[in-house]
Amino acid sequence: MKANIPNRIILPEEKTPTQWYNLRADMPEKPPALLNPGTGEPLKVEELFPIFCEELARQELNNTDAWIDIPGEVLDYYKTFRPSPLHRAYRLEEELGTPARIYFKFEGNNTSGSHKLNSAIAQAYYAKAQGLRGLTTETGAGQWGTALAMACAHFKLPLTVYMVKGSYNQKPYRRSIIHTFGAEIIPSPSDTTNAGRAILAQMPGTTGSLGCAISEAVEKAVTNEGFRYVLGSVLNQVLLHQSVIGLESKAALELYDEYPDLVIGCAGGGSNLGGLIAPFMQDKLQGRANPRILAVEPASCPSLTRGKYVYDFCDTAKVTPLAKMYTLGSGFIPGANHAGGLRYHGMSPMLSKLYHDGYMEAVSYEQTTVFGAAAEFSKVEGILPAPESAHAIRAAIDEALKCKETGEAKTILFGLTGTGYFDMTAYEQYLNGTMSDVIPTDAQLEASEPQS
Amino acid sequence: MKANIPNRIILPEEKTPTQWYNLRADMPEKPPALLNPGTGEPLKVEELFPIFCEELARQELNNTDAWIDIPGEVLDYYKTFRPSPLHRAYRLEEELGTPARIYFKFEGNNTSGSHKLNSAIAQAYYAKAQGLRGLTTETGAGQWGTALAMACAHFKLPLTVYMVKGSYNQKPYRRSIIHTFGAEIIPSPSDTTNAGRAILAQMPGTTGSLGCAISEAVEKAVTNEGFRYVLGSVLNQVLLHQSVIGLESKAALELYDEYPDLVIGCAGGGSNLGGLIAPFMQDKLQGRANPRILAVEPASCPSLTRGKYVYDFCDTAKVTPLAKMYTLGSGFIPGANHAGGLRYHGMSPMLSKLYHDGYMEAVSYEQTTVFGAAAEFSKVEGILPAPESAHAIRAAIDEALKCKETGEAKTILFGLTGTGYFDMTAYEQYLNGTMSDVIPTDAQLEASEPQS
Repeated sequence: MKANIPNRIILPEEKTPTQWYNLRADMPEKPPALLNPGTGEPLKVEELFPIFCEELARQELNNTDAWIDIPGEVLDYYKTFRPSPLHRAYRLEEELGTPARIYFKFEGNNTSGSHKLNSAIAQAYYAKAQGLRGLTTETGAGQWGTALAMACAHFKLPLTVYMVKGSYNQKPYRRSIIHTFGAEIIPSPSDTTNAGRAILAQMPGTTGSLGCAISEAVEKAVTNEGFRYVLGSVLNQVLLHQSVIGLESKAALELYDEYPDLVIGCAGGGSNLGGLIAPFMQDKLQGRANPRILAVEPASCPSLTRGKYVYDFCDTAKVTPLAKMYTLGSGFIPGANHAGGLRYHGMSPMLSKLYHDGYMEAVSYEQTTVFGAAAEFSKVEGILPAPESAHAIRAAIDEALKCKETGEAKTILFGLTGTGYFDMTAYEQYLNGTMSDVIPTDAQLEASEPQS
Repeated sequence: MKANIPNRIILPEEKTPTQWYNLRADMPEKPPALLNPGTGEPLKVEELFPIFCEELARQELNNTDAWIDIPGEVLDYYKTFRPSPLHRAYRLEEELGTPARIYFKFEGNNTSGSHKLNSAIAQAYYAKAQGLRGLTTETGAGQWGTALAMACAHFKLPLTVYMVKGSYNQKPYRRSIIHTFGAEIIPSPSDTTNAGRAILAQMPGTTGSLGCAISEAVEKAVTNEGFRYVLGSVLNQVLLHQSVIGLESKAALELYDEYPDLVIGCAGGGSNLGGLIAPFMQDKLQGRANPRILAVEPASCPSLTRGKYVYDFCDTAKVTPLAKMYTLGSGFIPGANHAGGLRYHGMSPMLSKLYHDGYMEAVSYEQTTVFGAAAEFSKVEGILPAPESAHAIRAAIDEALKCKETGEAKTILFGLTGTGYFDMTAYEQYLNGTMSDVIPTDAQLEASEPQS
């Protein structure tokens, strides 16, 4: 029965999702509320309006509606690159000699090169619908900045992107592609904001961090009439939009009577992971199935595996609300030789709660072993993965090798979030043997500990 | 009836081609034969065996079989990235305010980033099937080298790629991706071959050319036991494999009762153009339809629009057979500031014949206007085109604007051959206003004239 599964499954149009799935509605215990840092009180939706689009603010705090209609204009845009393909990794299975059946959901087949476009187009749509004049954001490795620049070009919305300085210098092509889509791009920390100037005064040579770039982007939004800030991960609204990944994956597997024993996603702020696992976690919460859910993070920025579950700021300058999450401290900056994204100090509050409550596992990997998996995967599967995505590949390979030992024919699903075309410098370092691993010491983690 | 055409048409599996279409079989006058440069006599298939795989040599000279089965292993691989989507460019139409209906066939949705993979996987398959030890090739902008490296990784075949030195230095990421797929990559001209050493002695500072890299790759193949040479364009066999582009395009348009009034493709050696137009040219040759067919080439390397239709060598060192084609002379090297591919001195003999016999038109564009079209297209359609592909976009936009003037609702189909992720340096030059145009003078063309 399972012999005729193609190696690339494209979901038929009538099966593609027209609603996003809001997992929080089905969580027996909700993630703790965001807190106003001044009062320590739970944030009211109106308090978010100066920062976020109103509809996005409402989505952020919506713990009750399980299904939210995808607006027509967003659906139309989705149709230019979705449904994304679900691949059966026959060649990888053969190469590993594993009885496991390995599937991956490939989100790299759009110009932004990653899953980030799923939320970018939604956020740009709501901004346009509200009549805003423009948006600000930050980007680390550049995937989010590229996706949002594309989305804003589509709706003809001005955009300013603060790009973590280390990436800005390492990835000139990322800058150029964001520039091509018409966005302004500024290396962070910069002298264009108070937050940036303060950080530069304190650490003149810093290569920046996501937390710092967030501070700058938020400041720029709240000090410019008609501008709002948007974010590509961590937030509930983002995980909501990314649920299309999981919904499509589940529907595509159902076509072939498959269900994953194990769902694996890379985890930085949690946008891909939260989206991929959403419908499977629903099954788990409602007792219909019990798949293992595995988050994979870099050893250089191990928020789930070495962070603390406490209230912390989402940014470095401490201007954002407080979120209860696994965090390394808002001052944490991963080592400069860490390649790729997944460099945020915290983790999605929703995923943090699920992890804390035992619904999810987490593991961390050093980057050389991750790039080893990426290089192997590219040769056998013919897709060049982003370093971020390669974390999930590494874990999937290791789990498939365990199946080889035990003889279990498990079904493994992982998220292949994007392509590595802009990460060739890091690939070259790996191939030449000049890549090294960066693992923060306990002392370093203590020094950046959350202060709340 | 035509209102419900989606903006991305994916051909259903049962409609995807299982045979390639060999246009030569239906040409009333065949392209003149390849000649042995020593004897001046038409080449026999056995004479090609030392250079090419035997099956590919047979395909090269096959002027009689219109349909050739795609081998099962190639079909399996095609399924990992084909059918490629056919897009309706609604947003571009709206932006231009044209009554034209614009479609484009997008071949960039695979890791190699272009249509080149269609032939690469076929050529690697035949090499493997013949039990060869390895392959050699050349690459200009890097698309073919990337595609062949992927294909050879799939079949675990060693590969040496001679990359035009100018591109090798301009595009370090291209090198790295080819390296990641396990191929050896050498900047050409190099000191690894007699041909390379001779050219280096004559022009020590040269940035190289495709013709020169071909000489090196052929020499490397014929001097190494069990190796053969493969080529990504120009040859009949390549156009045969690329016919999947046109076959899929035509089948996808038929689903919506559409037929192009105009088919536009960029033209370097002719691989994409020949593949895209194949079934439409068949209709034209057989009197079933009369679409305009338009080749678009760079003003910096204008083989069709300014070359001569004569017998010429396919390479610089004059070791290859002689082909009758539109050519600028095998010694022609496009200006160093020419961005992207489409830099071959000649044109596919089959397309040359069709152009010479009046079945096809040609136009050339300067690169700044091409990049202008690319930047505009990327913003409205959300796909970042390769500079090569952008030549077709430029022509499609201009034709759509003519429709706006005349009020004609023509159906335009163009080939979007690939993505521009590795061409961001050129995009940045365009955006910063530092890109210039390079048009060879008449004196330059005369100096490189074919000598036969």
